[in-house]
Amino acid sequence: MRVGVLTGGGDCPGLNAVIRAAVRKGVTEFGYEFVGFRDGWRGPIECDTMPLGIPEVRGILPRGGTILGTSRTNPAKIDRGYDLVVENLDKLGIDALIAIGGEDTLGVATKLHDRGVHVVGVPKTIDNDLSATDYTFGFDTAVNIAMEAIDRLHTTAESHHRALIVEVMGRHAGWIALHAGLAGGANVILIPEIPFDIEKVCDYIEKRFQSRYAPIVVVAEGATPVEGTMALASGELDAFGHVRLGGIGQRVADEIEKRTGKEARTTVLGHIQRGGTPTAFDRVLATRFGLHAIDAVRDGAWGTMVALRGTDIVRVPLAEATGALKTVPPERYAEAQVFFG
Amino acid sequence: MRVGVLTGGGDCPGLNAVIRAAVRKGVTEFGYEFVGFRDGWRGPIECDTMPLGIPEVRGILPRGGTILGTSRTNPAKIDRGYDLVVENLDKLGIDALIAIGGEDTLGVATKLHDRGVHVVGVPKTIDNDLSATDYTFGFDTAVNIAMEAIDRLHTTAESHHRALIVEVMGRHAGWIALHAGLAGGANVILIPEIPFDIEKVCDYIEKRFQSRYAPIVVVAEGATPVEGTMALASGELDAFGHVRLGGIGQRVADEIEKRTGKEARTTVLGHIQRGGTPTAFDRVLATRFGLHAIDAVRDGAWGTMVALRGTDIVRVPLAEATGALKTVPPERYAEAQVFFG
Amino acid sequence: MRVGVLTGGGDCPGLNAVIRAAVRKGVTEFGYEFVGFRDGWRGPIECDTMPLGIPEVRGILPRGGTILGTSRTNPAKIDRGYDLVVENLDKLGIDALIAIGGEDTLGVATKLHDRGVHVVGVPKTIDNDLSATDYTFGFDTAVNIAMEAIDRLHTTAESHHRALIVEVMGRHAGWIALHAGLAGGANVILIPEIPFDIEKVCDYIEKRFQSRYAPIVVVAEGATPVEGTMALASGELDAFGHVRLGGIGQRVADEIEKRTGKEARTTVLGHIQRGGTPTAFDRVLATRFGLHAIDAVRDGAWGTMVALRGTDIVRVPLAEATGALKTVPPERYAEAQVFFG
Amino acid sequence: MRVGVLTGGGDCPGLNAVIRAAVRKGVTEFGYEFVGFRDGWRGPIECDTMPLGIPEVRGILPRGGTILGTSRTNPAKIDRGYDLVVENLDKLGIDALIAIGGEDTLGVATKLHDRGVHVVGVPKTIDNDLSATDYTFGFDTAVNIAMEAIDRLHTTAESHHRALIVEVMGRHAGWIALHAGLAGGANVILIPEIPFDIEKVCDYIEKRFQSRYAPIVVVAEGATPVEGTMALASGELDAFGHVRLGGIGQRVADEIEKRTGKEARTTVLGHIQRGGTPTAFDRVLATRFGLHAIDAVRDGAWGTMVALRGTDIVRVPLAEATGALKTVPPERYAEAQVFFG
Repeated sequence: MRVGVLTGGGDCPGLNAVIRAAVRKGVTEFGYEFVGFRDGWRGPIECDTMPLGIPEVRGILPRGGTILGTSRTNPAKIDRGYDLVVENLDKLGIDALIAIGGEDTLGVATKLHDRGVHVVGVPKTIDNDLSATDYTFGFDTAVNIAMEAIDRLHTTAESHHRALIVEVMGRHAGWIALHAGLAGGANVILIPEIPFDIEKVCDYIEKRFQSRYAPIVVVAEGATPVEGTMALASGELDAFGHVRLGGIGQRVADEIEKRTGKEARTTVLGHIQRGGTPTAFDRVLATRFGLHAIDAVRDGAWGTMVALRGTDIVRVPLAEATGALKTVPPERYAEAQVFFG
Repeated sequence: MRVGVLTGGGDCPGLNAVIRAAVRKGVTEFGYEFVGFRDGWRGPIECDTMPLGIPEVRGILPRGGTILGTSRTNPAKIDRGYDLVVENLDKLGIDALIAIGGEDTLGVATKLHDRGVHVVGVPKTIDNDLSATDYTFGFDTAVNIAMEAIDRLHTTAESHHRALIVEVMGRHAGWIALHAGLAGGANVILIPEIPFDIEKVCDYIEKRFQSRYAPIVVVAEGATPVEGTMALASGELDAFGHVRLGGIGQRVADEIEKRTGKEARTTVLGHIQRGGTPTAFDRVLATRFGLHAIDAVRDGAWGTMVALRGTDIVRVPLAEATGALKTVPPERYAEAQVFFG
Repeated sequence: MRVGVLTGGGDCPGLNAVIRAAVRKGVTEFGYEFVGFRDGWRGPIECDTMPLGIPEVRGILPRGGTILGTSRTNPAKIDRGYDLVVENLDKLGIDALIAIGGEDTLGVATKLHDRGVHVVGVPKTIDNDLSATDYTFGFDTAVNIAMEAIDRLHTTAESHHRALIVEVMGRHAGWIALHAGLAGGANVILIPEIPFDIEKVCDYIEKRFQSRYAPIVVVAEGATPVEGTMALASGELDAFGHVRLGGIGQRVADEIEKRTGKEARTTVLGHIQRGGTPTAFDRVLATRFGLHAIDAVRDGAWGTMVALRGTDIVRVPLAEATGALKTVPPERYAEAQVFFG
Repeated sequence: MRVGVLTGGGDCPGLNAVIRAAVRKGVTEFGYEFVGFRDGWRGPIECDTMPLGIPEVRGILPRGGTILGTSRTNPAKIDRGYDLVVENLDKLGIDALIAIGGEDTLGVATKLHDRGVHVVGVPKTIDNDLSATDYTFGFDTAVNIAMEAIDRLHTTAESHHRALIVEVMGRHAGWIALHAGLAGGANVILIPEIPFDIEKVCDYIEKRFQSRYAPIVVVAEGATPVEGTMALASGELDAFGHVRLGGIGQRVADEIEKRTGKEARTTVLGHIQRGGTPTAFDRVLATRFGLHAIDAVRDGAWGTMVALRGTDIVRVPLAEATGALKTVPPERYAEAQVFFG
């Protein structure tokens, strides 16, 4: 049995742990052979492979990133993209493919399954916004990094009279903001799910300033004001059409300064949230995902992906990966509001 | 409504987060008044209280330990112990009691509930060995501390030719050893649930030495050899009748040196596993436990405790806290064995 | 002997360690009494004091910030400012004053010394730009925080094809950028001392992209392009006339995107560099500064400040604190250039 | 020019940073070629080499340990040891040798220099006990690890009534114990330089227990009681004749329990103090040592080693490396005693 492995989409702490676990168990228990595809779907499209055996996966467990590289290459956007993948997998003698990635990567995997490719998925989203699984690896690491940043800001908040804004990841779901804000003791948390009223934000800030301590505001990059309540900044798209990182944090800071007359300072964590060594939670989850993915290969459970339910790893149809986004429910946000102000 | 709060048993990162959340929500949303009892059940037995309001819980979220202090005082072992508790709660005008602790503390809480005391429990065990809840706070912090220690040992293992032994907590359940060992990439993991064969351990060690890398062995403090296979060390109990920390790690190291002729060095993490600032996972879990405990008080859900099921906080009967120990099931241990040697 | 203590200027990890050490030694060895002034020079100007004894300094060693609070209040900018300080110190029976702060704070202290006030200084600048001392506390902590951020970015740089920009503190001196860049393995380091040529920066970036790895650029907030080589961004001053944090990092990223056609992402560390628990180096240095400051008080060494020379703490005239800025010498920058590209 | 590099003695965070810096500068600025010798002096004795170029040193800056491996092999203890080294260096065409190591390694280097070998040294001792240099790399990392352990113990000390003992490295010099104890706020510090009186230790402990907090004692592994004051434990040497790690910490704990009637718990940090990623201080120092070592090679400064004086890297005769041990002077210990009890 010859098993291909690829990682697609944004990088995420734990990818290497998945790869290592699948290879270790596949080689030592089942005698499988492995082929690594470079840079996500670009690998099978261009037949770009690398050796993937026990020596290659040694020592990678604690390392962030992915030894296979990753990209956003999508067969759907390439002429004969799917055909090329199917042909090349065949040409390389690949009997099964483990695709590790988010909505896009697993969407491609689903299509390939429909075309008869033997594929098993491992879900990956640092934003934790996948409804098919309780948690995804990488999320816990990101939350801890953001929390540590907030912890550090508290000592400044105790010594100075400034509002401190931290912008964290989360375009469509506010899980990182919610958990990091709860864990860090933020005074306001703004998430994409619930448009914020800047006036109310300023009320919390004024209230907090009345204690001896300065307020800390956690803003998900996808948070948006209630329409018409905040002047829209222009030029927010960069040369690649992406929303400029740091945009909303700085805008909230500007509004706070204007409305309260207090200084406001912004920290934009950016890519440091998705880098570095994974936490224990993420290493264990990613390792178990890898072990169960190779079990799924052995069982011929094509078209499924692994998922966490409570403390168990289960198999669910690949199609669930591209189902509804798991957003923060109002009652979870309400829990956090107890600590606002 | 006047609510008493106490923390019993060993300290555990997250206790302060529970206290803070319960007080914050109780005061700001329900208008409750709080009384802190010092040092677990010693507090109500001796009427030793401290003020517990918003100012007292400010800034304690990131701090390990418990501002209330803790002890192993047990009313059952004190003449008229239970009567004293009931009388003093009455005398102090306590309408409801939140008891945060492990099997012993919640066992007392159950008895008090039977005597009509309005009590709500919050489970606490750093060993994660409580079957009523998916996870308990403190466990994730302990696992991360142990994992970081193992990470550090890897660089020595890559440079020297020595077996490295790490002894971690876990008298009756091997969860910390299992998760820290998996996350840290240990070459052998020994847990209390499955008596180990020292000969097999040495086989793994010899095998590992044949690669360029030295082996790392994680040993739970309650791990025991298969009977008759290892000389029993004498004098393992200390002056207080407790098993001496560090015992089994050192003994395993001694046996490895004797049997393999290779040097073996031991690290005993001891109390550093239960100290210091909690991880994000533990802060969020503890905060949610605190919020849901005060909701249970508001609802008059006496005799219940909060628990985690998947991503939800639920209520279960207090009696479940003292039910079956949640030990590592054989299939979870088998997952880890893939990485042995 | 009644000793006043104040902290002025920006907060800095280690301030509490200085306070604690001075108070511990002053009380237990010399029997001194202490008075804390709140918020820098605002304290003596407005007679705003707080108790400062053994209980107040308990547990503050590992905590960032300052229990005394800080501000940028300057007697020189206040009507009769210096007179008020002298009169109030007298009124409060202060025999000696320990002033902990940077250029501004110690400049005021020098003036007060000239007017006969018994003052001893402790230097503080997170930027390490004071020529009178080998190192100042807080700097090592800031460098470690920035280095850890760079470490995390490396895993992304290994997996993606993006230039990653990190903006760190340093308006006038590039020490944090230099040390964090060296320690983190940055591919380009830009400091205020040496105007940069954006074309050369892009050359390094292109060169780095030719390896499989993406480039990491560390930019001090005070770094500036060679005149005329980069379009000046408008609106860089905020409502308070300060240079907007994040300005130069984002501008460098924009230029890189424009000139190389590669994506560039920015992280602005901001205040997290000066918050949180100090490193061991900073705790030891700050503690020794505090011990030697109280020795200077005992010796009546008025008008001096403590300083580090090699491994020794020495006394130098206060005036040296406001002497020449210690900037990065060209040969130290040349050391780092070996690693560019 | 063909330059050999080797690392000898115990491993130490920063070794890889030295190797990387020397190779980077040697290759890119001077066009040198490098040869790595494996496992210290075993390499040249057995002609065991590995390639050492830019690709080999990529990514090793943040990694502890040494990619060259290390050992305690000593040519002086091997028949014709020195002759073999000289002959093999000649045979391999080595023009210059960079030896990175402690007293033993640099002692051998000195002997080789006397025999005409072109050798340059880089000092390495995690214990910081070398008088020729202000600091050695690895020390700062070890102190931070020990300090973090002490930080964690504080929360337990605030919640329980137990004496907590931490045993740290330091056979002959107490620098790690002194700095970690100062930085961590220990209540007693015991170092090899000054035999301790267990009765006085217990006095401090009793005094501390009278506050609400439990005492933390830091013990260097080489600390010894004043003769005759503490029963000597038997069997302290292990199978290799080394003093058993953990010995003195446990013995101090036993005595405290016996004399004060209070529980005492021990943590033995062991090898985790010398593993893992180096701190910024150590990475910068090690990097600068590497850069200056290759400069010394270029300058033909044979028989010298690099050293830190203040903030400068200087060259000193190799023989100084094996000169007097730098122990903790009484006045530095006295500084720390202010905080005892």
